[in-house]
Amino acid sequence: MSELVRYQKHITEALAKLEFPAQPAELYDPIRYTLAMGGKRMRPVLVLLGCEMFGGTAESAIFPALGIEVFHNFTLLHDDIMDEAPLRRGLPTVHTKWNSNIAILSGDVMFVEACRLISKAPVSALSRVMDVYYKAAGDVCEGQQWDMNFEQQDTVLLPEYLNMIRLKTAVLLGAALQIGACCAGANEEDAHLLYDFGCHLGIAFQLQDDVLDVFGDPAVFGKQPGGDILSNKKTYLKLRALEKATPHQAETLRNWYSSREFVAAEKVEAVTQLFINLQVREDAEAEMNRHFQIAMSSLNAVNGQTKYTTILEQFAQELMVRVK
Amino acid sequence: MSELVRYQKHITEALAKLEFPAQPAELYDPIRYTLAMGGKRMRPVLVLLGCEMFGGTAESAIFPALGIEVFHNFTLLHDDIMDEAPLRRGLPTVHTKWNSNIAILSGDVMFVEACRLISKAPVSALSRVMDVYYKAAGDVCEGQQWDMNFEQQDTVLLPEYLNMIRLKTAVLLGAALQIGACCAGANEEDAHLLYDFGCHLGIAFQLQDDVLDVFGDPAVFGKQPGGDILSNKKTYLKLRALEKATPHQAETLRNWYSSREFVAAEKVEAVTQLFINLQVREDAEAEMNRHFQIAMSSLNAVNGQTKYTTILEQFAQELMVRVK
Repeated sequence: MSELVRYQKHITEALAKLEFPAQPAELYDPIRYTLAMGGKRMRPVLVLLGCEMFGGTAESAIFPALGIEVFHNFTLLHDDIMDEAPLRRGLPTVHTKWNSNIAILSGDVMFVEACRLISKAPVSALSRVMDVYYKAAGDVCEGQQWDMNFEQQDTVLLPEYLNMIRLKTAVLLGAALQIGACCAGANEEDAHLLYDFGCHLGIAFQLQDDVLDVFGDPAVFGKQPGGDILSNKKTYLKLRALEKATPHQAETLRNWYSSREFVAAEKVEAVTQLFINLQVREDAEAEMNRHFQIAMSSLNAVNGQTKYTTILEQFAQELMVRVK
Repeated sequence: MSELVRYQKHITEALAKLEFPAQPAELYDPIRYTLAMGGKRMRPVLVLLGCEMFGGTAESAIFPALGIEVFHNFTLLHDDIMDEAPLRRGLPTVHTKWNSNIAILSGDVMFVEACRLISKAPVSALSRVMDVYYKAAGDVCEGQQWDMNFEQQDTVLLPEYLNMIRLKTAVLLGAALQIGACCAGANEEDAHLLYDFGCHLGIAFQLQDDVLDVFGDPAVFGKQPGGDILSNKKTYLKLRALEKATPHQAETLRNWYSSREFVAAEKVEAVTQLFINLQVREDAEAEMNRHFQIAMSSLNAVNGQTKYTTILEQFAQELMVRVK
């Protein structure tokens, strides 16, 4: 992991050097606050790796890399307003610390700043980079809209769910790699293969997240299992369980999910037991592995420098190892 | 005005041909709704004029022109959430017709679509066009933030007010022209002069708006005067009046502006009378004329085809003629 840590460090230092105007403070303080919250900086690291893999310098992709991170943080900022989330990474969200109007507008400016940074891609790559970026940006918004729609819907089909997590989470990982590749002048095929790698890895990662939330070891992951069950979140496990359940099991599930008065531990235990009986963890892991395999095949087909494909392979393996 | 009407028609037709995905409907219906609300399409017309003036074809600037209009409508959409405006052009605003979350997210997507359209500028001009656009986009957000800040502040200085209207309204007019010029490959100096023309014309136009709201003829403008007075809006007239007022006049003004119970017509009459006594209309018009003159000098210095500088001059004259 030390190679990745080096990249993360590079990104963190470069992010800290970004300068925003002092005034109006209501606009730029929330941006500084959001970017200082931390995070794994996974997306900008992928931009740099995607670039170096095809002989480009980290230097030529650093601004697009920072732009992708700023864009990602902008989406979190606006999502937090819509989801009424009080906390992000343990800190008050912008709309809580300031107010919704400030969160809307400082988010808009973050988006502008993200675009500006990404448009500092090498001129020869600019048109390709912007195409990939805008496509991904639209996709992420669509993903968030589907996610909000699903909360209101009675039924969500598994392909719809998979499409939602692809749009909301996965495409930006793919786009980050593809943008890096474009900065280095990689050909279309390689750039697309890298996009596919990132995208399918992202889906696999999100499915793993669904599984870990229920079956993860609290000693390892530092949180009590069942958060998604308690918040009635439509995860792969829940949707698949409703699909496989007998009428009686389905009724039990629906009762737990619609009940307003319950003992938390009892609800988590009962729903988890139903998930076990219905073997939906196995289904989720099969789907996860399917996407992981597509990701790895895509990566293997990329004509990039072995040093970097190896780092990406390692990155992918370490990302998924938590569940196995 | 027939030349301008021809341009407007061109824009309206091209806008109507823009296609957005059907799904998710919550995301794209508000965009279709917003763009169909109408408007004078002034900004995209300026893009086309700026381009043709330097020998470019309308074709080469049409997508950036549409992008500027989509961007402008995005800012209105988000502003309406922040200002809690129920109506826009006589129709329910997006956050009223749908809800705030949908308005935030469909606004974000509009911004993405605007960027996409603008990035269809001729490749040779792309980098310049994006620089001008992102700068203006950031400026517009800053203008909105200052405007919101001013509502909460006791005192706003006139230079601060002028800077706010420059950022919030005027720079986008300048940027529209500059982007058109860049699409045609105009040199930096000409492109900047056109920007200055649009920007100062925009400031003059906004100041005229402040004056008309109080002193405009309702028979001509179709609305009762004094809307800004009733909503306690910090306009040039109000700020200048507070600057020039004797302590006694200032107290009278403050009383009217802070009073919660009053007869609307009486408040409008009393404040208007104070404006007349303090001769702030004359000051506003002097400031307006100053900006108008700078705009015209900038335009005169532009090395563009006379046919188009003449159209712009006419455009400017007709825009301002209402007040004289």
